[in-house]
Amino acid sequence: MFIGRITGSIVSSHKVDSMIGQKLFIVEPLRVDEATKDSLKSTGRTFVVVDAVGAGEGEVVLCVQGSSARYTEETKKLPIDAAIIGIVDKVQVHEALVYDKSAED
Amino acid sequence: MFIGRITGSIVSSHKVDSMIGQKLFIVEPLRVDEATKDSLKSTGRTFVVVDAVGAGEGEVVLCVQGSSARYTEETKKLPIDAAIIGIVDKVQVHEALVYDKSAED
Amino acid sequence: MFIGRITGSIVSSHKVDSMIGQKLFIVEPLRVDEATKDSLKSTGRTFVVVDAVGAGEGEVVLCVQGSSARYTEETKKLPIDAAIIGIVDKVQVHEALVYDKSAED
Amino acid sequence: MFIGRITGSIVSSHKVDSMIGQKLFIVEPLRVDEATKDSLKSTGRTFVVVDAVGAGEGEVVLCVQGSSARYTEETKKLPIDAAIIGIVDKVQVHEALVYDKSAED
Amino acid sequence: MFIGRITGSIVSSHKVDSMIGQKLFIVEPLRVDEATKDSLKSTGRTFVVVDAVGAGEGEVVLCVQGSSARYTEETKKLPIDAAIIGIVDKVQVHEALVYDKSAED
Repeated sequence: MFIGRITGSIVSSHKVDSMIGQKLFIVEPLRVDEATKDSLKSTGRTFVVVDAVGAGEGEVVLCVQGSSARYTEETKKLPIDAAIIGIVDKVQVHEALVYDKSAED
Repeated sequence: MFIGRITGSIVSSHKVDSMIGQKLFIVEPLRVDEATKDSLKSTGRTFVVVDAVGAGEGEVVLCVQGSSARYTEETKKLPIDAAIIGIVDKVQVHEALVYDKSAED
Repeated sequence: MFIGRITGSIVSSHKVDSMIGQKLFIVEPLRVDEATKDSLKSTGRTFVVVDAVGAGEGEVVLCVQGSSARYTEETKKLPIDAAIIGIVDKVQVHEALVYDKSAED
Repeated sequence: MFIGRITGSIVSSHKVDSMIGQKLFIVEPLRVDEATKDSLKSTGRTFVVVDAVGAGEGEVVLCVQGSSARYTEETKKLPIDAAIIGIVDKVQVHEALVYDKSAED
Repeated sequence: MFIGRITGSIVSSHKVDSMIGQKLFIVEPLRVDEATKDSLKSTGRTFVVVDAVGAGEGEVVLCVQGSSARYTEETKKLPIDAAIIGIVDKVQVHEALVYDKSAED
């Protein structure tokens, strides 16, 4: 899985039937900053994901890729390869807190 | 999933039987421009995808990769690893509209 | 899927039983030249694929990756992650012909 | 599979039901140092994995990706694409020991 | 699939039950040298694979990735994403022999 920040969304009015009603978010994967090790930085990549937990823009989320994106109640049998399966509260690396949702609000 | 622009197509007269009649498009994946954050740019990669929604050249589309490309009515059991599952109308990032299909027509 | 040129082959006399008799080709994936947009160029990568259509060295072919490589009559249940599912006749990008098999013969 | 070092963890209080109680680790994949061939170095990437063996922070572990991450007793049917399936004791390359857990303790 | 050279191995005494007794090799994927086209060179990447054919260190082998790694008699249902399915004897590219096992012994 990877962690990423929801930075946007997509509108697609013409799509396969099973996708009707599915919220499509833009997510930028994050990684631990190699130099400082004390923060998360964007990888610069752009993924489109389906939301299985009721997340919102700006939040840092846990995403799953591949066939496993179909293994939640909300997403089973959907033609998707990426889904949000959790909202991230804290990320700790080398015993330091590199992300804290409560500090962002 | 990823968003990409349909830039071309492929003709293959000799292929496995199950692929007969399937339209094969060339798609260039797009990502949010890291510098400006206000537009989409090509990643320079080239994918071949099967169309499940009746898309056309020049359109920006939503594509799924991997085994999930087989999870639509149109593509089930096909030996494919990428399919178009939606036509994109709008992409919004950081509360700005970075793609608007209606502005392109 | 991706398009690639068959540039070679592999001989493996000692392999798992199900692979006996399977032709193993070396394929170099191609992509649209970003600068000129009027030709295909090699990505420099090297894949090994199983042939499901009777292709030959030098040909440009359509390849599928992942579990879907097992979804043809010729390859079902093989322990493979890449297969040739079509021989490419023409590739058209931005309304220009960037590959034409008949021009190569 | 890949080997990586557990460098941190994630807290996600709001997630899909099946993931409740699953420990989420941050893992940095390692590779053999190309120059010296006598040590492992970080690839700089950041993965989130579920633990199937009771590993702890700082340990070097064996991770599996993709659908196979669901093929252990501990992880079956979870919506995950990466899992720790072993704790690494030793890594030997070109007949030299490039990692020895007992030397780290 | 890809070809790679076995350069090492891993010892993991604490792992999921199904993996007990499985030999874990370090494999470096090879690709055709883009400049000379007459040899194979390392990609510098490091994979861990399970052996389904009785290969040994130093050998060049054929590896499969993803769910298909579970499609051999030796590896079925294992939580693995990469397996050796053949020992490579010869690799020929552009009608030249770029690898010959008999010349290495």
